[in-house]
Amino acid sequence: MGSPLPKQFISVGGRPVLMHTIARFREALPGVTVILVLPREQQDYWGGLCRDYGFGADCLVAAGGETRFHSVRNGLGLVPDGARGMVGVHDGVRPFASVATIRACYSAARTSGAAIPVTPVVETLRHVGGHTVPRGDYRLVQTPQVFEASLLKDAYAQPYREAFTDDASVVEAAGHEVTLVEGNRENIKITTPFDLAVAEALLGRQAGAAEGVTQPAP
Amino acid sequence: MGSPLPKQFISVGGRPVLMHTIARFREALPGVTVILVLPREQQDYWGGLCRDYGFGADCLVAAGGETRFHSVRNGLGLVPDGARGMVGVHDGVRPFASVATIRACYSAARTSGAAIPVTPVVETLRHVGGHTVPRGDYRLVQTPQVFEASLLKDAYAQPYREAFTDDASVVEAAGHEVTLVEGNRENIKITTPFDLAVAEALLGRQAGAAEGVTQPAP
Repeated sequence: MGSPLPKQFISVGGRPVLMHTIARFREALPGVTVILVLPREQQDYWGGLCRDYGFGADCLVAAGGETRFHSVRNGLGLVPDGARGMVGVHDGVRPFASVATIRACYSAARTSGAAIPVTPVVETLRHVGGHTVPRGDYRLVQTPQVFEASLLKDAYAQPYREAFTDDASVVEAAGHEVTLVEGNRENIKITTPFDLAVAEALLGRQAGAAEGVTQPAP
Repeated sequence: MGSPLPKQFISVGGRPVLMHTIARFREALPGVTVILVLPREQQDYWGGLCRDYGFGADCLVAAGGETRFHSVRNGLGLVPDGARGMVGVHDGVRPFASVATIRACYSAARTSGAAIPVTPVVETLRHVGGHTVPRGDYRLVQTPQVFEASLLKDAYAQPYREAFTDDASVVEAAGHEVTLVEGNRENIKITTPFDLAVAEALLGRQAGAAEGVTQPAP
């Protein structure tokens, strides 16, 4: 992103992206245990940020891995075997998962064992080898992806495959179905300067709404 | 959008979306002829906006139709039979097609007869009936979609089909291949309040860049 700072630490709307993300989960799920998966070389930096911002740093921390799969597996190592309840896996750089989306995913997972948030494809979609495909038949996948704890731990005991692009694909490869829940459009993954500009705009809008400030006429 | 005003007329960054869009094409393609397709009941309103904003209203205007297909066909009615050169079809609510994207599409169409801008799918993609699909095999399609004039007019002489979601699908149904060109991520279609917030953010960033203002550290 033209910045040496990993994007989860970039400040938007007055504090690092990752703090927004964690705060949103604590709002949606009071008392939730947060396991942060961070590359070892970033863990001290994060501790320093928590001190600087007076942010409650009562998260468990696991080491990042070679791929997303390995990172999640490291995080799951901190979930005790035989643990009951739900485990959600979320991208730290998605600070705008709504409280409604988070709760809907956990609620659906409690029923079905596995739930992920999806949104419609709003642009025309093509297969590179061919022609336009019916976009209504496809969904874009977000996080949090939420699973019954032992189901997820069992699925992550599989050997790694390249096709494991998200947790749902790991769980499905282990033979479980996944429930699709409606996500929220604002739940973007911040990966480019464009996304950062969007994030600043969204935070400005949310701050205005929270303070009861009149929005500019649309 | 919670506003009675059609989104192409909503003001962002100081003027209606549609003026940003037209200005971008005039910058990319000096001397370009613009054919605006607008519902009849919006045409006077647009004329008034042009007077209010001192915006050069030297566009040809055609009436909107029942579907996108019919609207484009109405617009093509103003392209003389036997016209040489390229015709680009663009969404009025995409003000952020970059000059590079516009020029690349016109340039590729001059060679191949048909070119459209596409971007990668950045989120995990699923088929609703099944599982995750390889997102690298898919592209999201933007506009401008650019074609050799007679090729496009011939294609639009076909009877309407529901599968005609964009101009490329019409041209492909007529038996022509379409070249894929790299679009730009910012080239969003403004259809929701979320998109409007993004648009304001992008315009703020562009204005800063144009004035040489230092950007906030990312």
